[in-house]
Amino acid sequence: MSNTHLNLGVCYYPEHWPRDRWEGYAAKMKALGLRYVRIAEFAWSRMEPEEGVYTWEWLDEAIDVLHRAGLEVVLCTPTATPPAWLVRSYPEILAHDEHGRVREFGSRRHYDFASQTYRAHSRRITRELASRYGQHPAVVGWQTDNEFGCHGTTRSYGPASRAAFPHWLQQKYGSLEALNQAWGNVFWSQEYTAWDQILPPNLTVTEPNPSHVLDYARFASDMLAEFQEEQIAILRELSPGRWVTHNFMIFFGDFDHYRASEALDFVTWDNYPTGMLEFFSDWVDEQTKLRFARTGHPDLISFNHDLYRGLKQGRSSAAASANGNSPARQSGFWVMEQQCGQVNWAPYNPLPAAGAVQLWTTQAWAHGADTVSYFRWRAATMAQEVMHSGLLRHDETEDRGFHEVKALDRSGMPNGEVRAPVALLHDYESLWIFDQQRHNAGLSYWTQTLTYYCALRSLGIDVDIVHPDADLSAYRVIVAPALTLMPEARLQRLEAAAHGARLVFGPRTAYRTESGRAFENGQFGSFKHLFGGRLLQFDSLRPGLTVGVGEHRVTTWAESFEPREGQSLHSYGDGPLEGQCAVLRHGNVTTVGAHSATLVREVLREVLREAGLSPQDLPEGVRISRRAGVSAWLNFNSEPITVAGRELAPVSFTLEAEQVMA
Amino acid sequence: MSNTHLNLGVCYYPEHWPRDRWEGYAAKMKALGLRYVRIAEFAWSRMEPEEGVYTWEWLDEAIDVLHRAGLEVVLCTPTATPPAWLVRSYPEILAHDEHGRVREFGSRRHYDFASQTYRAHSRRITRELASRYGQHPAVVGWQTDNEFGCHGTTRSYGPASRAAFPHWLQQKYGSLEALNQAWGNVFWSQEYTAWDQILPPNLTVTEPNPSHVLDYARFASDMLAEFQEEQIAILRELSPGRWVTHNFMIFFGDFDHYRASEALDFVTWDNYPTGMLEFFSDWVDEQTKLRFARTGHPDLISFNHDLYRGLKQGRSSAAASANGNSPARQSGFWVMEQQCGQVNWAPYNPLPAAGAVQLWTTQAWAHGADTVSYFRWRAATMAQEVMHSGLLRHDETEDRGFHEVKALDRSGMPNGEVRAPVALLHDYESLWIFDQQRHNAGLSYWTQTLTYYCALRSLGIDVDIVHPDADLSAYRVIVAPALTLMPEARLQRLEAAAHGARLVFGPRTAYRTESGRAFENGQFGSFKHLFGGRLLQFDSLRPGLTVGVGEHRVTTWAESFEPREGQSLHSYGDGPLEGQCAVLRHGNVTTVGAHSATLVREVLREVLREAGLSPQDLPEGVRISRRAGVSAWLNFNSEPITVAGRELAPVSFTLEAEQVMA
Amino acid sequence: MSNTHLNLGVCYYPEHWPRDRWEGYAAKMKALGLRYVRIAEFAWSRMEPEEGVYTWEWLDEAIDVLHRAGLEVVLCTPTATPPAWLVRSYPEILAHDEHGRVREFGSRRHYDFASQTYRAHSRRITRELASRYGQHPAVVGWQTDNEFGCHGTTRSYGPASRAAFPHWLQQKYGSLEALNQAWGNVFWSQEYTAWDQILPPNLTVTEPNPSHVLDYARFASDMLAEFQEEQIAILRELSPGRWVTHNFMIFFGDFDHYRASEALDFVTWDNYPTGMLEFFSDWVDEQTKLRFARTGHPDLISFNHDLYRGLKQGRSSAAASANGNSPARQSGFWVMEQQCGQVNWAPYNPLPAAGAVQLWTTQAWAHGADTVSYFRWRAATMAQEVMHSGLLRHDETEDRGFHEVKALDRSGMPNGEVRAPVALLHDYESLWIFDQQRHNAGLSYWTQTLTYYCALRSLGIDVDIVHPDADLSAYRVIVAPALTLMPEARLQRLEAAAHGARLVFGPRTAYRTESGRAFENGQFGSFKHLFGGRLLQFDSLRPGLTVGVGEHRVTTWAESFEPREGQSLHSYGDGPLEGQCAVLRHGNVTTVGAHSATLVREVLREVLREAGLSPQDLPEGVRISRRAGVSAWLNFNSEPITVAGRELAPVSFTLEAEQVMA
Repeated sequence: MSNTHLNLGVCYYPEHWPRDRWEGYAAKMKALGLRYVRIAEFAWSRMEPEEGVYTWEWLDEAIDVLHRAGLEVVLCTPTATPPAWLVRSYPEILAHDEHGRVREFGSRRHYDFASQTYRAHSRRITRELASRYGQHPAVVGWQTDNEFGCHGTTRSYGPASRAAFPHWLQQKYGSLEALNQAWGNVFWSQEYTAWDQILPPNLTVTEPNPSHVLDYARFASDMLAEFQEEQIAILRELSPGRWVTHNFMIFFGDFDHYRASEALDFVTWDNYPTGMLEFFSDWVDEQTKLRFARTGHPDLISFNHDLYRGLKQGRSSAAASANGNSPARQSGFWVMEQQCGQVNWAPYNPLPAAGAVQLWTTQAWAHGADTVSYFRWRAATMAQEVMHSGLLRHDETEDRGFHEVKALDRSGMPNGEVRAPVALLHDYESLWIFDQQRHNAGLSYWTQTLTYYCALRSLGIDVDIVHPDADLSAYRVIVAPALTLMPEARLQRLEAAAHGARLVFGPRTAYRTESGRAFENGQFGSFKHLFGGRLLQFDSLRPGLTVGVGEHRVTTWAESFEPREGQSLHSYGDGPLEGQCAVLRHGNVTTVGAHSATLVREVLREVLREAGLSPQDLPEGVRISRRAGVSAWLNFNSEPITVAGRELAPVSFTLEAEQVMA
Repeated sequence: MSNTHLNLGVCYYPEHWPRDRWEGYAAKMKALGLRYVRIAEFAWSRMEPEEGVYTWEWLDEAIDVLHRAGLEVVLCTPTATPPAWLVRSYPEILAHDEHGRVREFGSRRHYDFASQTYRAHSRRITRELASRYGQHPAVVGWQTDNEFGCHGTTRSYGPASRAAFPHWLQQKYGSLEALNQAWGNVFWSQEYTAWDQILPPNLTVTEPNPSHVLDYARFASDMLAEFQEEQIAILRELSPGRWVTHNFMIFFGDFDHYRASEALDFVTWDNYPTGMLEFFSDWVDEQTKLRFARTGHPDLISFNHDLYRGLKQGRSSAAASANGNSPARQSGFWVMEQQCGQVNWAPYNPLPAAGAVQLWTTQAWAHGADTVSYFRWRAATMAQEVMHSGLLRHDETEDRGFHEVKALDRSGMPNGEVRAPVALLHDYESLWIFDQQRHNAGLSYWTQTLTYYCALRSLGIDVDIVHPDADLSAYRVIVAPALTLMPEARLQRLEAAAHGARLVFGPRTAYRTESGRAFENGQFGSFKHLFGGRLLQFDSLRPGLTVGVGEHRVTTWAESFEPREGQSLHSYGDGPLEGQCAVLRHGNVTTVGAHSATLVREVLREVLREAGLSPQDLPEGVRISRRAGVSAWLNFNSEPITVAGRELAPVSFTLEAEQVMA
Repeated sequence: MSNTHLNLGVCYYPEHWPRDRWEGYAAKMKALGLRYVRIAEFAWSRMEPEEGVYTWEWLDEAIDVLHRAGLEVVLCTPTATPPAWLVRSYPEILAHDEHGRVREFGSRRHYDFASQTYRAHSRRITRELASRYGQHPAVVGWQTDNEFGCHGTTRSYGPASRAAFPHWLQQKYGSLEALNQAWGNVFWSQEYTAWDQILPPNLTVTEPNPSHVLDYARFASDMLAEFQEEQIAILRELSPGRWVTHNFMIFFGDFDHYRASEALDFVTWDNYPTGMLEFFSDWVDEQTKLRFARTGHPDLISFNHDLYRGLKQGRSSAAASANGNSPARQSGFWVMEQQCGQVNWAPYNPLPAAGAVQLWTTQAWAHGADTVSYFRWRAATMAQEVMHSGLLRHDETEDRGFHEVKALDRSGMPNGEVRAPVALLHDYESLWIFDQQRHNAGLSYWTQTLTYYCALRSLGIDVDIVHPDADLSAYRVIVAPALTLMPEARLQRLEAAAHGARLVFGPRTAYRTESGRAFENGQFGSFKHLFGGRLLQFDSLRPGLTVGVGEHRVTTWAESFEPREGQSLHSYGDGPLEGQCAVLRHGNVTTVGAHSATLVREVLREVLREAGLSPQDLPEGVRISRRAGVSAWLNFNSEPITVAGRELAPVSFTLEAEQVMA
């Protein structure tokens, strides 16, 4: 298989296995068709068993063995796991949780991103590692750390972050007057008169000020990005010509991934479809979890693919070209860790269905992945991940995933571009403020965002997920499901975009200013002319309580508008909002106030048609994705499905030459 | 509208809004028919931006603007929100939660009532405020602090309370022998041999001694009351002729409201019907929550009205007359904060039904409120309450509640007396001991108490809720649903009351002595002759397990009696208590051992009839209340209901001249 | 009643009652037919009101009163409740919970087993007590402390345990290299380079290393055993000819009960059938909890009887004979606390059904109890247990349990041997590792173990529960439901046992090595020849997801095998394991991979028949147990049942001469 088609890789921990296995494993990897091998993640205690004493021999040998077998190596900085000696010598690096408890050594990610002490150690080990291997011919790229934010580790409430937060605020606001005004601290006498009065927003008697929390989220996100950028700078210096990436996780919202990926060449993510559904999708209902227990949900997976494909488009076209001298293509992304058997960390961890590993791999490619790297080579026989699968079993026999990878034909999977006609706008700051004040325990930023994404995917549409400040000029339809935080500059850009494209907004759009306050002149702020009206009411519906819009039942959230320049496309048929506008239309801009999957789909279908696209109604669990002239039909159901004249086998994919859309 | 009918008011925070809005707002308030405006709550950081530096100019102006518009001002002491500078200078004022964690600055109510440091600051700011405005012609009264106990802040487990508790115990018991005896500390070697060995009852390995917890509840309740009394004494000194009140909350059981209101002129409470049902009524089933999601439950609301109307009747007629020189009527109460749109603090916050604001206002009047004051004037555009409604929206337009208030005709609502023929007895000490040792996770003091209250209300009966030690001579029927803690003196008074009235008791009556022990001679203690028998068994029924009494199904709790002088009115038809007495009758005293809403209603209906009252069977959600010769028919259902020849529109009220009861 | 039949006793706290009651109580106990009275539990504050000052007079008198009445006394060491003066003088004895919080004085069990300070006090009070009463003619035996481990007190995370843990590890492993290897610490850089780097496994960022947790469980279990052994040594010295026991609890898995009972003469346990079902069986479904709410579940109760009957068989025949010079019979056990009315500590505490106290007493005897001692004499009128029943009520009248005890005919209950033909193997180390990494939130060690136990009991089979390293030569069938931790030596012994007996294993058998790692050569390690195959896959089934084996539905767990020497008895009919072996048979060894109660029962029925036993299919809630030539038929249902020609009344027992099994 040439470079031009989907590449495969594997995550491997040579230090876990006897030395006499290494050559055999390398040969077996090569025979399986793998190209990349990621190593050295978490291996700090083997690199530096005591402070300043380095033991590189094992790693020299591990890299050489892989190199001799013709494999390419991805090296990791080991900073996700500072060793015991480091933690005991410098306990001030430990993070604290929101209850004020120290987060101890004994698993991983036990550090505070704001700790200057830990940053110095992070730079030191990165420098040592990059000095030794930065120009090794087998080493083609770097992964920083591992899964930033995993286990709720983005935000620490301990001494390091406590000390850094006031300085960050001072940089941002300049004066306490500005901060007090931005946060609305006159409310409940929350005004500060000295910078060091300001603590992290935990342990408050009741809900803290949402603007305080919002800025703490920004602060923690910045600390994380700075921490990584310090490593990247060293890698760029010492490992020229190699790329640098990070493996992000599933539906992680605690930090701004756009900010965190700015200095990377491309991004990767870790795709665990069954664990994702059970563990990272607590807003998904039990019936859906049961139906897709063995395959994961197609749209939840592809949402992450589309998210990470779009991550490096950055906040603006200026940012996107900043790394133009990088050896990697801008648009490529990888799946760095791909589930290939049962995982161990969800409440329930069923076996993937037969065919699921091939289906997931194909889906990743169809959404733009250039490389899919399986986790992990051989199942661990020790410690926390004993019950997690690998390509090989504990006993070194080939597991089910191995056989599926071996049998996969990648010849129809060229690594070309994904050209989606529709953009879905996503922004972590909106997520932070949305989820802090939900007003309805059943509604989250992800729920609302996925409702629109799933509707688009069920209509057969390819979607780019991009930051609202990205260049939107290429899109015919732009969907913004949950952009509740809206700086005026952003609204101006969206207004400009509405000249060339059709825009669809969801509820709570433009409800908040940049600092998390409500607009003094109400929802949509000064841009009511763009939307064609103003907010009248919002109605937060408890479980069992619904209101109607035509034949659609609305759950969790209903907001109504007073049309001014705009007109009402749909109105409420009952409840307190009876007769009021539920879907507002003004020119190219449609705003949906009601939370109803079927209504959203109806509205989107009509807008897509107007835009000259050809939505098609796909059955549940069946999806189509297009890349580089190929259409991939994916069936996540355990039954065969006939769609548009094709018979799709259970848990399978079919590749076809793409039909050009009208 | 004259003083003789229902008055309206509003809660207003001038410091939240630009100065150029103040005159306009005042004029608009006046035009809406409002009389009172409550201000300065939480405004400490604006009154005293640094220690000892006072900035009154804004408040001078705010009061003057309202005064010029002809509005009357209710001023608040701002002690619910000590500012950041105060907390950072005197961190010892902070409370600690039961897990031992400090409760930090960043929201409100971050102080320990037992802190002598904070008490000094509380007295100081009260004195400064009262010195300046105590005799201002616009100022007609005072509210102390805000919603004592909100967010579980009555009890602190921190240093201030830890230090004060042993002294309080020493005052109460005199000797450790007496304390050890009262608490039964011989059990599990819990005996103390020095006062300072005694800590708050948190962080124990398993359940602490309930007598220990009971006294800690009394201690914390006393600290709260003392804290307030210090403020009241200063207000009386510096603001002669003005009344002093406090705004209590919904179903708060952590402190003794009778004790806390002793020094007030009258009481007020904050009425949030939808939030009450979702958030403060976790013992209500989901079906009921759904049915009344947009109106609140009529009996839960009116229970609080009746409770606060009766609060100032005090523990004895002596206490009731102690404030006889107060300018305010004894029996009056206010709703200080009345919901007039969606709230923001429950898990689900649906819009009120059309008509609900008028219905709630009328219900408040009918249960004895002299003034209803809406929360809040304009919806906050910042901080914790951004998603809470006001009479005006964020954008200053008039919200739905505004229109309902404007359209309300108060001419049929004279501020006369409520004369209820039935007393329901309520006591916080019984609540404390009942809920500590429930013996059944599905049963609480409130559940049991409301079962009887709702039955009375469903029979069309007006109810006074009073302390068991109040003067009961005016009542024809006295109902004591859950008086489990019964000092002998109280039983003596009830025995006396039984000469003139019919008494109905619920399960667990007179199970406990004053210190929370069981009676050495069993339930009813030495007063078995009053009840006509003794306890045989109690049976705690798990969900799904029921026993029968006639056609009634009994859930959660069944206790049986051996009749001695008394006779069995109803007996158990199955289960371990088959054939044993479930309802015991002796003379004027009826004791119900079985928890069954339908049985309770049957027993009460019969007793009411015997007492010469005329119970009528009202449909669910329909209620009648009588005040000053007027009957208010209230329909909380979303459908029209026909009752006794009247057609009641959905979510509506109807006022009629009262029919004199037989 | 002579010594040769079931004896009765009672738990009694003379210090709780006025002195003038003591003689009357003793006479009433004697008249009821009680033989033993357990006293002085928890009475430390009365024995030693201040450090070094002893007050024995009350206890002298209490013992003498009982002695004069002809009762025999069981004395307790009072160490479950160190008094306030001790805790305040030596606060370092307090335990800390896994959240890092101190566990305070104010209930019971507030100490850390590893505290050398507390150990000294424990030895001191034991020595004082034993010196005074060790040879008193009324004193026949001793109970150490009370219910070790209750309220999660086995493991402390405080200073005492923190200090002791590294030393324990050093003793065990000798070198850090050995420890790092045993725990697999190369994973996630968890390697230690100094002993004092190792802390208890709490407060980690995510799941700690399971081998770390496993060793912490062993450490804590050893500390507990050592603590007790120090007391036992003193009692042996000062109270010759008396036995020493401890009262264990229901389904407690936090310490190794085999280890903890080694130095005892015999064991006792505390049998609370209704509380057991509600509180200690969270893995039991709601329907079963409802059905048996008033009787407890027969198999859950008898499991504990069989467990404690087998406890002193120890880990090997050598251990079993170590206490051969003890005055007590090896095989005897007691129920030290037998529920005789409602308890107070479960979420719901229903009254026992009429007849339940007799049924429980008979069941205890039938499973081998020599004595049943009721808890407690008179219901406490104070403190934590006010709502717990006794034989007498608060008011001293005879409660329902009293009457059942009085009416019980024990003449048909000789204290002979229980001879069970089937052994069920149980091991706390397997429990610790199984429940740490469940891989399925719905599956626990107890669930899996009870599934097999209940199947055996539903087939009418008497079962011994024994440690896997016990002498198994007497058994015809050996069932090992959940032995996931399997040292090679243990597998060797089981291989030997398979020559003479039929063996049945459950899922996850021999998945782990002694240190909690997986075998490098996969499940069954080097003993695949014994099982006749190897593990292929495991499948963790979420709620609602099932797979089929013939007509059986498999829930929560399905694992499949590759038969080598063995053959497939049953295979999966659908799902990812379709066609693979679900039940593997090789010679005398059958291994069940699928979690299905009906499949397990089918497999066991066939194996029992092959072994020449006569399984019979009993209705739900009906059980048969055999002892000393008598068969006890027990009906836990609230309806009469006809079984094998007998009519069994609701909640009743029937004794018959035993039919000799074929």
